[in-house]
Amino acid sequence: MKELTTRLLEAVRSTAPLVHNITNYVVMNSSANILLAAGASPVMAHCEAEVEEMVAIAGALVLNIGTLEDQWVASMLTAAKAARKKGIPVILDPVGAGATTLRTEAVQRIMETAAVSVLRGNASEVLSLGSDSTTTKGVDASVGITDAVVDAARAIAAEQACIVAISGEHDCITDGTNVYRVHNGNPLMARVTGTGCGLSAITGAFCAVADGPLLEAAAAAFGYYAVCGDLAARISDKPGSFAVSFLDCLYAAGPNEIRAYLSIS
Amino acid sequence: MKELTTRLLEAVRSTAPLVHNITNYVVMNSSANILLAAGASPVMAHCEAEVEEMVAIAGALVLNIGTLEDQWVASMLTAAKAARKKGIPVILDPVGAGATTLRTEAVQRIMETAAVSVLRGNASEVLSLGSDSTTTKGVDASVGITDAVVDAARAIAAEQACIVAISGEHDCITDGTNVYRVHNGNPLMARVTGTGCGLSAITGAFCAVADGPLLEAAAAAFGYYAVCGDLAARISDKPGSFAVSFLDCLYAAGPNEIRAYLSIS
Amino acid sequence: MKELTTRLLEAVRSTAPLVHNITNYVVMNSSANILLAAGASPVMAHCEAEVEEMVAIAGALVLNIGTLEDQWVASMLTAAKAARKKGIPVILDPVGAGATTLRTEAVQRIMETAAVSVLRGNASEVLSLGSDSTTTKGVDASVGITDAVVDAARAIAAEQACIVAISGEHDCITDGTNVYRVHNGNPLMARVTGTGCGLSAITGAFCAVADGPLLEAAAAAFGYYAVCGDLAARISDKPGSFAVSFLDCLYAAGPNEIRAYLSIS
Repeated sequence: MKELTTRLLEAVRSTAPLVHNITNYVVMNSSANILLAAGASPVMAHCEAEVEEMVAIAGALVLNIGTLEDQWVASMLTAAKAARKKGIPVILDPVGAGATTLRTEAVQRIMETAAVSVLRGNASEVLSLGSDSTTTKGVDASVGITDAVVDAARAIAAEQACIVAISGEHDCITDGTNVYRVHNGNPLMARVTGTGCGLSAITGAFCAVADGPLLEAAAAAFGYYAVCGDLAARISDKPGSFAVSFLDCLYAAGPNEIRAYLSIS
Repeated sequence: MKELTTRLLEAVRSTAPLVHNITNYVVMNSSANILLAAGASPVMAHCEAEVEEMVAIAGALVLNIGTLEDQWVASMLTAAKAARKKGIPVILDPVGAGATTLRTEAVQRIMETAAVSVLRGNASEVLSLGSDSTTTKGVDASVGITDAVVDAARAIAAEQACIVAISGEHDCITDGTNVYRVHNGNPLMARVTGTGCGLSAITGAFCAVADGPLLEAAAAAFGYYAVCGDLAARISDKPGSFAVSFLDCLYAAGPNEIRAYLSIS
Repeated sequence: MKELTTRLLEAVRSTAPLVHNITNYVVMNSSANILLAAGASPVMAHCEAEVEEMVAIAGALVLNIGTLEDQWVASMLTAAKAARKKGIPVILDPVGAGATTLRTEAVQRIMETAAVSVLRGNASEVLSLGSDSTTTKGVDASVGITDAVVDAARAIAAEQACIVAISGEHDCITDGTNVYRVHNGNPLMARVTGTGCGLSAITGAFCAVADGPLLEAAAAAFGYYAVCGDLAARISDKPGSFAVSFLDCLYAAGPNEIRAYLSIS
């Protein structure tokens, strides 16, 4: 995975794929800066009248349901349909799924109709999408990505025919059969808003330049991102300066850092 | 107040209360980061279809009328009604009240129907809500929190039966009878957008964990916040790096800093 | 231009003009911080019900079509009409013009009806507004501000009777007759989202305090901004910390820095 991660990162930097985000208000700025720091080109556009044209020039589509309103779901579905026709990857970030009916149902509706390539969330968000038969009862998602969570993720990936990528301690990325675990990352990442949403955007950038299976591209995105979290935590041990250092590391990390620190199993 | 401030800060950090914000676009990111740095859990959700469910899992509700649209007022009223039923504190930040009819009337409507616990604004915003009999004529709110402003704040607090908390030089927090003044803080705070809105969010976090009167909880929130402004100004004397240091200080400040620097009378 | 730039910067700092922004979600926070760092007063307000009252207390109006929705165009036109009546400058930032029909048509509609004072964008955005006769065929706007781009900018300025200000390497500011080129600035500015939008806001602040032709005020705004980019790049060579330093430099740069580094021809 070290060579693949290095290669895809270089591809992001040399081709600057346009990543089209329909995302929440909280993270529009931070996701744009995260994509720019990594070398990709961000665009935020949510008006249904223009999303198809924007998808037409994009390399990936990232949907994120934070700060959701009804009309945004319609735009997301229109954009996703255009993305499917064009054949570009669609990343879905189910922010807050499970917390409110609006969000849970929006995610279900998008999953049913949009041919999502990668579902990227934290454990509780992702598990809220499992059917009764797939969701392991008694799993407390907030405690981390346990074996039971991994099993549920695999079941959801198989059921939904997409990649399920859960961030947290020891991220889990699976297509239902194979499972990658990323052992990098730092707890301070959870003290900066939008870090998870930014990872969804970076996953979009890596999938946009993938020359092989998206499972490995998504795992590479997670690995690069988490290594940058490690590197930033060496510079800053408080969240304000950590967020600044994290952007610096996304910009500066290269093959040497990936080879020295990436830990994926 | 030093012991109470320390105790409530520790309670925020140990229980991470969920603070539900219906706030303006400008500060959604910064308010989330301010809450996370302090140890609270932020959620931003404004769609009327989900605000009741979000209030159901929240410890405080923060309403903020910057970048207002009509439909947001409806969501705020629905959320506030749910908050009242549940018995959690409601903080209202009247951004720009007095500047336009839309905002002044929205604040009046929310005050009339929503059982606001704490009204948190700057002097001119708060004074715009006073009736003719309470607003001291000739007060130039922009010059600071003068004795006349304090008198007007007390009158508004008594009239509206809520706590009025005015930020500025020597913050004023009053329930109409008692008045606390906070003597910490730094002018650079006014050079970073969203600092006032972030204080409303922190007031929500402190009120969420209060085990006594909200007046003292609000004063403690103001004190902690202003001490962090002092601490950040020792590290950075320009607004970009000050904003970063301020988040770092919100994260790192503890009992020692509160005891050494907090000045409330 | 050094003396004029210094003088207008001092005027911004001493009078803190209120700059009314109807701008996109991505940059609301960063544009506000950029204006505050420079010494101006930002307000973001887009609801049609309040934009006329906001214009009434503003010194400049900045319109920006990123993350556009239909109803925002109506608010922009209402605000622009009020600005025209009041006689304050209107800056238009055509973010993404040329990329989608929604945006291109919105810009055309605003240009036709709103008496725009300064059109501020990058080369491809601005050139998308040229008629067939003015747009030089074969110009690849993404490669920089070539002589052909300057010619097209002059033609558009003459045709639209406004100032056209293109940012990029060697910014170009023209009223159709005279052309200023700014030779300061750093490539890292393009790695931070909202840098261009922030320049539109700063152009608004400088035009608000102009005591002479807006062409020179716009060129002065560009010069000050680009010098701050140079200064920030001396402190930080990565985008996260660069963005922080850039705000610090906008705040701290004064006559000495302008005189030592500004390069306008």
